[in-house]
Amino acid sequence: MPLYLAVVHYPCSNKQGEVVTTSITNFDIHDIGRSGRTYECEAVYLVNPVPSQLWFANRVLEHWTEGAGAEYNWTRKESMSRVQTIEDLVTLTEQLEAKHGRPPVYIATSARKTHETWGYVAMREKMEADPDTPWVLLFGTGWGLHKDLMDEVDYILDPIYGAGDYNHLSVRAAVAIILDRLRGEKWHESKL
Amino acid sequence: MPLYLAVVHYPCSNKQGEVVTTSITNFDIHDIGRSGRTYECEAVYLVNPVPSQLWFANRVLEHWTEGAGAEYNWTRKESMSRVQTIEDLVTLTEQLEAKHGRPPVYIATSARKTHETWGYVAMREKMEADPDTPWVLLFGTGWGLHKDLMDEVDYILDPIYGAGDYNHLSVRAAVAIILDRLRGEKWHESKL
Repeated sequence: MPLYLAVVHYPCSNKQGEVVTTSITNFDIHDIGRSGRTYECEAVYLVNPVPSQLWFANRVLEHWTEGAGAEYNWTRKESMSRVQTIEDLVTLTEQLEAKHGRPPVYIATSARKTHETWGYVAMREKMEADPDTPWVLLFGTGWGLHKDLMDEVDYILDPIYGAGDYNHLSVRAAVAIILDRLRGEKWHESKL
Repeated sequence: MPLYLAVVHYPCSNKQGEVVTTSITNFDIHDIGRSGRTYECEAVYLVNPVPSQLWFANRVLEHWTEGAGAEYNWTRKESMSRVQTIEDLVTLTEQLEAKHGRPPVYIATSARKTHETWGYVAMREKMEADPDTPWVLLFGTGWGLHKDLMDEVDYILDPIYGAGDYNHLSVRAAVAIILDRLRGEKWHESKL
């Protein structure tokens, strides 16, 4: 099914839980673009309402898709060509609805369990059973997606727990793990 | 069992397969430190023979474990305090053998299948069945661990395949996914 990633820079929380706009970082573009491409996402959206931020991101993308970077590293060109910038989730909803003929379904991710959440096996089955819907995984930056957005999404995934009580993964690591669980080969079914 | 990560900067391959030393990047220290802490690794080693590289890494680590960063963000302090620098794998072997009373077992990772490799279920069972051995996961940088090192390790894990034929993950993403498979909660056994 068509799967999209959205790296959300607004509305996010700061350390105090207040709503803020965070900055796009170069490493997010590269790492999340590569993970998105590896797990066959249709596109990775960098969601940010600030024009200078979108300009910066587009400049990086242009370097790797059309500039000197494209010639240096074709695998990077391939991943970067699926990364796009967008002002907000309202615009994203409109675009995906126009493309797919139905509204996208938003699945939020969080390191903290503040709402009812879904497990990965159940969510994967749900997504695979509905292959015509555009599914969008939302990842927060800063101190995470703001509460107001969490209240509005369609589903929320279980937090990723590691091997102990510390779960402060980077957004880049969380994206990789969640894609592997929802979309990767079923490595856990192989005993070899 | 005691699990260690080693991010190897030498001996790595360049694009042409020649042996090179790569640079330590700030993002690796943060992201891999956080993933290592989340999945309860004893330590994350940055392996680099170049003194100025180790000086740089130690300066970053000091900022977050003792400097202003430690006060700003205690979760970062906690992950950074398990990141260490080391000159080479010979020294690492000596240190771990002295600490654990037995030599470490090295498990290499690679995006390409050039040797016999192990699946994740089998490797996890093997590790859990031998809880006194220090296990070390080796991750390459640049274009990956050099062939000479791959020939010498004890085990090699299967490459991570995504949903298609493109598998160019960042080392930060690969670390996160592999730790989740070898050490994470068994999310795939839950149907909820």
